[in-house]
Amino acid sequence: MSVSTADPLVTEFQKIVARALEEDLHAGDVTASGTVPAGTQGRARIETREDIVVCGLSLVSQVFATIDPAVRCTFLVEDGAHVAAGDNLAILEGEARSLLAGERTALNLLQRACAVASKTSAYVSQAAGRLRITDTRKTMPGLRALDRYAVRCGGGHNHRNDLGAGVLIKENHIRWAGSLEAAIKGARDYAPHTLRICCEVENLDEVARAVEAGADALLLDNMGDDEVRAAVALVDERAFIEVSGGITLDRVARLAASGADAVSVGALTHSATAVDLSMLMER
Amino acid sequence: MSVSTADPLVTEFQKIVARALEEDLHAGDVTASGTVPAGTQGRARIETREDIVVCGLSLVSQVFATIDPAVRCTFLVEDGAHVAAGDNLAILEGEARSLLAGERTALNLLQRACAVASKTSAYVSQAAGRLRITDTRKTMPGLRALDRYAVRCGGGHNHRNDLGAGVLIKENHIRWAGSLEAAIKGARDYAPHTLRICCEVENLDEVARAVEAGADALLLDNMGDDEVRAAVALVDERAFIEVSGGITLDRVARLAASGADAVSVGALTHSATAVDLSMLMER
Amino acid sequence: MSVSTADPLVTEFQKIVARALEEDLHAGDVTASGTVPAGTQGRARIETREDIVVCGLSLVSQVFATIDPAVRCTFLVEDGAHVAAGDNLAILEGEARSLLAGERTALNLLQRACAVASKTSAYVSQAAGRLRITDTRKTMPGLRALDRYAVRCGGGHNHRNDLGAGVLIKENHIRWAGSLEAAIKGARDYAPHTLRICCEVENLDEVARAVEAGADALLLDNMGDDEVRAAVALVDERAFIEVSGGITLDRVARLAASGADAVSVGALTHSATAVDLSMLMER
Amino acid sequence: MSVSTADPLVTEFQKIVARALEEDLHAGDVTASGTVPAGTQGRARIETREDIVVCGLSLVSQVFATIDPAVRCTFLVEDGAHVAAGDNLAILEGEARSLLAGERTALNLLQRACAVASKTSAYVSQAAGRLRITDTRKTMPGLRALDRYAVRCGGGHNHRNDLGAGVLIKENHIRWAGSLEAAIKGARDYAPHTLRICCEVENLDEVARAVEAGADALLLDNMGDDEVRAAVALVDERAFIEVSGGITLDRVARLAASGADAVSVGALTHSATAVDLSMLMER
Amino acid sequence: MSVSTADPLVTEFQKIVARALEEDLHAGDVTASGTVPAGTQGRARIETREDIVVCGLSLVSQVFATIDPAVRCTFLVEDGAHVAAGDNLAILEGEARSLLAGERTALNLLQRACAVASKTSAYVSQAAGRLRITDTRKTMPGLRALDRYAVRCGGGHNHRNDLGAGVLIKENHIRWAGSLEAAIKGARDYAPHTLRICCEVENLDEVARAVEAGADALLLDNMGDDEVRAAVALVDERAFIEVSGGITLDRVARLAASGADAVSVGALTHSATAVDLSMLMER
Amino acid sequence: MSVSTADPLVTEFQKIVARALEEDLHAGDVTASGTVPAGTQGRARIETREDIVVCGLSLVSQVFATIDPAVRCTFLVEDGAHVAAGDNLAILEGEARSLLAGERTALNLLQRACAVASKTSAYVSQAAGRLRITDTRKTMPGLRALDRYAVRCGGGHNHRNDLGAGVLIKENHIRWAGSLEAAIKGARDYAPHTLRICCEVENLDEVARAVEAGADALLLDNMGDDEVRAAVALVDERAFIEVSGGITLDRVARLAASGADAVSVGALTHSATAVDLSMLMER
Repeated sequence: MSVSTADPLVTEFQKIVARALEEDLHAGDVTASGTVPAGTQGRARIETREDIVVCGLSLVSQVFATIDPAVRCTFLVEDGAHVAAGDNLAILEGEARSLLAGERTALNLLQRACAVASKTSAYVSQAAGRLRITDTRKTMPGLRALDRYAVRCGGGHNHRNDLGAGVLIKENHIRWAGSLEAAIKGARDYAPHTLRICCEVENLDEVARAVEAGADALLLDNMGDDEVRAAVALVDERAFIEVSGGITLDRVARLAASGADAVSVGALTHSATAVDLSMLMER
Repeated sequence: MSVSTADPLVTEFQKIVARALEEDLHAGDVTASGTVPAGTQGRARIETREDIVVCGLSLVSQVFATIDPAVRCTFLVEDGAHVAAGDNLAILEGEARSLLAGERTALNLLQRACAVASKTSAYVSQAAGRLRITDTRKTMPGLRALDRYAVRCGGGHNHRNDLGAGVLIKENHIRWAGSLEAAIKGARDYAPHTLRICCEVENLDEVARAVEAGADALLLDNMGDDEVRAAVALVDERAFIEVSGGITLDRVARLAASGADAVSVGALTHSATAVDLSMLMER
Repeated sequence: MSVSTADPLVTEFQKIVARALEEDLHAGDVTASGTVPAGTQGRARIETREDIVVCGLSLVSQVFATIDPAVRCTFLVEDGAHVAAGDNLAILEGEARSLLAGERTALNLLQRACAVASKTSAYVSQAAGRLRITDTRKTMPGLRALDRYAVRCGGGHNHRNDLGAGVLIKENHIRWAGSLEAAIKGARDYAPHTLRICCEVENLDEVARAVEAGADALLLDNMGDDEVRAAVALVDERAFIEVSGGITLDRVARLAASGADAVSVGALTHSATAVDLSMLMER
Repeated sequence: MSVSTADPLVTEFQKIVARALEEDLHAGDVTASGTVPAGTQGRARIETREDIVVCGLSLVSQVFATIDPAVRCTFLVEDGAHVAAGDNLAILEGEARSLLAGERTALNLLQRACAVASKTSAYVSQAAGRLRITDTRKTMPGLRALDRYAVRCGGGHNHRNDLGAGVLIKENHIRWAGSLEAAIKGARDYAPHTLRICCEVENLDEVARAVEAGADALLLDNMGDDEVRAAVALVDERAFIEVSGGITLDRVARLAASGADAVSVGALTHSATAVDLSMLMER
Repeated sequence: MSVSTADPLVTEFQKIVARALEEDLHAGDVTASGTVPAGTQGRARIETREDIVVCGLSLVSQVFATIDPAVRCTFLVEDGAHVAAGDNLAILEGEARSLLAGERTALNLLQRACAVASKTSAYVSQAAGRLRITDTRKTMPGLRALDRYAVRCGGGHNHRNDLGAGVLIKENHIRWAGSLEAAIKGARDYAPHTLRICCEVENLDEVARAVEAGADALLLDNMGDDEVRAAVALVDERAFIEVSGGITLDRVARLAASGADAVSVGALTHSATAVDLSMLMER
Repeated sequence: MSVSTADPLVTEFQKIVARALEEDLHAGDVTASGTVPAGTQGRARIETREDIVVCGLSLVSQVFATIDPAVRCTFLVEDGAHVAAGDNLAILEGEARSLLAGERTALNLLQRACAVASKTSAYVSQAAGRLRITDTRKTMPGLRALDRYAVRCGGGHNHRNDLGAGVLIKENHIRWAGSLEAAIKGARDYAPHTLRICCEVENLDEVARAVEAGADALLLDNMGDDEVRAAVALVDERAFIEVSGGITLDRVARLAASGADAVSVGALTHSATAVDLSMLMER
């Protein structure tokens, strides 16, 4: 399924845009009001200064639609597109004061979304279609919907959205449940049947026990490449296999050949650094 | 003035925490509910796995106070402290389900705040007390209050909070105002008198003209080290001098000797990557 | 796992309580202010006039904590308890005006939550532990978190929380995807791996095809008892089997013997009618 | 005055719709995104499977306007219309993913509003225009504005909106005020003069005393038919007479002949069960 | 009934306080943070510089409770008290930075509430207990609950809270209804029976017709003193009589002798000017 | 720079309008619904009954756009215009019920904004272009953005927006800092360099010390005219001079000749009384 902007996330994105505008514009724009004559028309283009995967264009139009519905946004690319340094992403036309007022908020949102999409894309291309790259819940507070959307735009997959949308049994749950088997049984009995039971395991013994106990998916935590391959053989398609911990781009390439199904990468969202975009104004 | 947690930001921080909890916990925690017996008591400590500057502890206590007021938070350090890999930041005691429910949200907030503080601190130590390191408005959407607080915890200074809290005349304002002089005069006439008039300049000619026109502060944009020194001499203390563009840690050290007053660094907030923290649960 | 009030739903419940109070008390309580002298102390007990399963006590305390933190709430039972007509659920002590101000809001919330829990419990007892009773997304708008909690208090299970927390392929998805097989494959490829692929089927042919295509769970829609039994045999434990459509209490008892795993019942939430509670004031 | 959708409730309805969408769509629609190709166009009609009074159509259009302004809603009936099983209420055309994303939220709202309107209508037709049927404050938390609107669509009347919008002296107020007379006087002295003083009475003695003390309206609580008629005679048009408690459809017909002015029925809102609607998608 | 702070308005007041703090403190207090050492303890008292009626003390404590729960508020008077210039209203003790941070917000709220209460009190004392002084809906946007509370603290009465909490037929309603009689009948038929039908009238002919048509209350709009007395005689206690338009303090004294029941005064809220309060800090 | 409505305050104004509508219309408009036939079309004009400076027209259109997008607003003047008693400001056309529903809310907002603008204008014309008239933070809680905009519309200037947007060292800061010099140095070291350091002074000695210590602006607090002139001479253009305390219109005229740069007037916002506007409906 190709990336689509038709995900019904508009309400989440509107809240994100509203908060961001509130931070920057609640007291107006004193510089533009003092220097730019009212009524001055302008034109701006958003340019990328590095190769990126585009994400978040709808937030740009939402920013300007909120400030000034008369601003016209024309997008030259779509979310999910790979563009090169120097390419233009969008043209904005309207009152100069409005363009200036929205510039930073729009760029802050866009540079974050593109950063996550681009970082994801780098991992995805290493995976070469042989395993899925997933995000984690280590998203930027307040931006989870956007971060997850960006991961999809970058070709990645989402992990569970929140603590109510997926079961992932970790070491602590196991300890407090009494045993791995008790934890899997307890989760199975309690959770909506629409959820798989995923269980974090740390060695081959736990792999065997978790599969035996009926886990639908395993999270191999901090296992080496050899151990991952051994786990794949041991599981023998009885469970989905996700690998996590110490994931680098190089390692993704190696894991792609291991038979594992997915690699989850916290860095997609917790360590994405802003891509370099600028809004260039023209008279 | 030492860093203090007594800044009256509690309302902003509460909103940030509320949104973050909403993202992760609106549908409960199915894993913990299914595996951990109700009433089980636990103890957890938050440990850092790298050397960091601490920031954001009050958000951790706010997370748990919201979920379960019975959880006790004990902080072993204060915001602004420099701690080493392996150090503990906090002890949390209470119902195991509550600790698990708040773990990720608390860490997501803390790892962001510590990241910004720590990155700032690295620049600040290069500056050796000879110039101030400031943030920019390139903050994470929705987290501006926290990002700016983190910059202060890292020893840095804040730039203007928002478009209404400072005047910064840039190239586009100048173009639309007609001239640098017109822009400075317009801003001076319009803006609250509590604000300095800051003007971005790109060469020594503009430096001279801006000072002549009465700018209180100059932003030397993308000037080389020699040009900065020349500007400092030319200005001769008639304006505050901020340097921006292409700032690396090394260059901060060089600029510290230039006589400039400040360096503004977008990367403090747009390129901070999460520090490595973990919450370790004990029975 | 026993029912627990420790689900981290406090933030959702607080929002529900805040909205409900806003509806009833934004302009004060003119009757009590006009008739009851300020400072008058009172005592009230909440009594049920029918046999019910209790649910929602924490919302009662939240109502009064918001209006007047000096009101003391003592609960005589716990959420999930089966109580008989005439039993008391809670004692409230404090300023008479506060008791009167919160009475209706507290009862409106409690009578809804108990209604859903009690209705669920009726189905659960017919199921006799042989299949799970689940809710649907046909919850009261604005009260989903409470409705789902009430289902759990009544001994039932939750279905997916929202459209992002579960995959359920229905007739329309199949039509637009091109085929049942294409829909299952598309969903599998797209969805978080933490989610099972559930597929609605309408006859035994579709049952066979869905299992073959890898569905993890089937929703047998409007099939008769014989057809359900045939589907159970056909599936032979390769998928979870949920039955839906035309579910009555009698039929639950019959289905309990069919080998199906779950019955989903929209009526738990869309047709629960308020239980009969009253708040009896004493001087 | 005929039922009109021009009541200025749009802001309340928008909040109700926003909350409902937030519950179901904050994490997107994984099933539709995984199975329905982006750009697929669809058409849907909303059909009722039982005879109902229509209510809430504007919420349906608000749901889709929020998700996707490109969806076209055509209503085939108006709020307040009586329609038969099998009738269509609305046609929706637009992107298939958008129709699927909004389906459940739209139906949840509509089935609630129609349920209240239809239940009200049943009582209203028993009243045969001889007394008014009113709601109570026993509305669904968060949905008071919608519930009250639905009562009006069903031909009923509203009681006071909230504790600040009407005076209703009950047994407890009387006890704490010292006497029925003191309560009526206190309320009269305190309350806005735009409000009638309504007083709950339990026997003919109280009827006489309340009228004597100047009550504008009486609420005959749990009185039998004979007692109601006696009260009507005793009051002799000096006060509005509302009957409450143990109201069945049959009894409404009898009360219609009693000379009472109104019957208030909590069941209109606390015991309305969802009407049976479906959204039928077409390619 | 004496003025009481026990009105259940706490939720409305909390929202008012939260918005006010958001306006002033979202970016911290740079002056105090830069000048006052963290940890410095202080003590402040709120003094009035003119004779006033006190109102709004609970908002002061809410301001400081939000900023810093460690601040102790001691109130020396109660809402509704008449105090003289130079009197102290409250003592605040705690961290100096917190006192400074909340000072302006607390005073802004308090000076508004006291202004409305004091202005009301001036009218009330002219009325000498012979007619009630009421507010109107001409309140400060966003502060209606507070303005109305202040009117009560000043000894005044409230008019209807909002357009749904009272019926007031004005000239325009009459014109569009076709006649005064049609308007009264239409309103009677439509409105909750808990509401009186109030009708604005402009001359004695309308007075007679409105009473005849069953109006419960009349609003004599812009009638002279003689005309008011004539109306009182004509109505002969068949309706409540409110006078409005061109009300001065002197005229209230005259109207008090006219037999009218109430005077409504928009100026109580639309023309109240801040009372002169100051917060005096001590080391 | 002329007054412009293009300030990006739309989000703040929308929140103000939303809250105001919520206060008045959450329960509909029972009078209009009961008296005006649905579908009745009307036309209204907003007229001023006194000479005013116009401000807040965009809030009027926002009010009606929210209630009923079909209402057409035509503005006959612009914000900032000086209009005479009897002039019309706007024409509204649409459904009569919608005009009635929005009338009071629109007028309440407009009469406040015009009041502040008009009061400001009176001071500004006394200043005769020789000094700026500024507001203070003594704004109406919840309306700061509107109050400040109104000041600008009246020809005035804004002071700092909030405690984070400007430095103003007052007596208490000085006391707690230890000395005026310490306070100025502390603030300079801490505050964003985009802010001037403003210092309140009470006598000529403090004037001299503050300038010497590097204050950028002085607030002469409660100094007499002679002292102000002496301060101006002493400062000799080394700092911006603001005068405050006991400001009357007459005194502004005198101060205009003193050489001071600004007068700040709390009364612009804390003592503005509503201008007299009315909405006149036509069939």
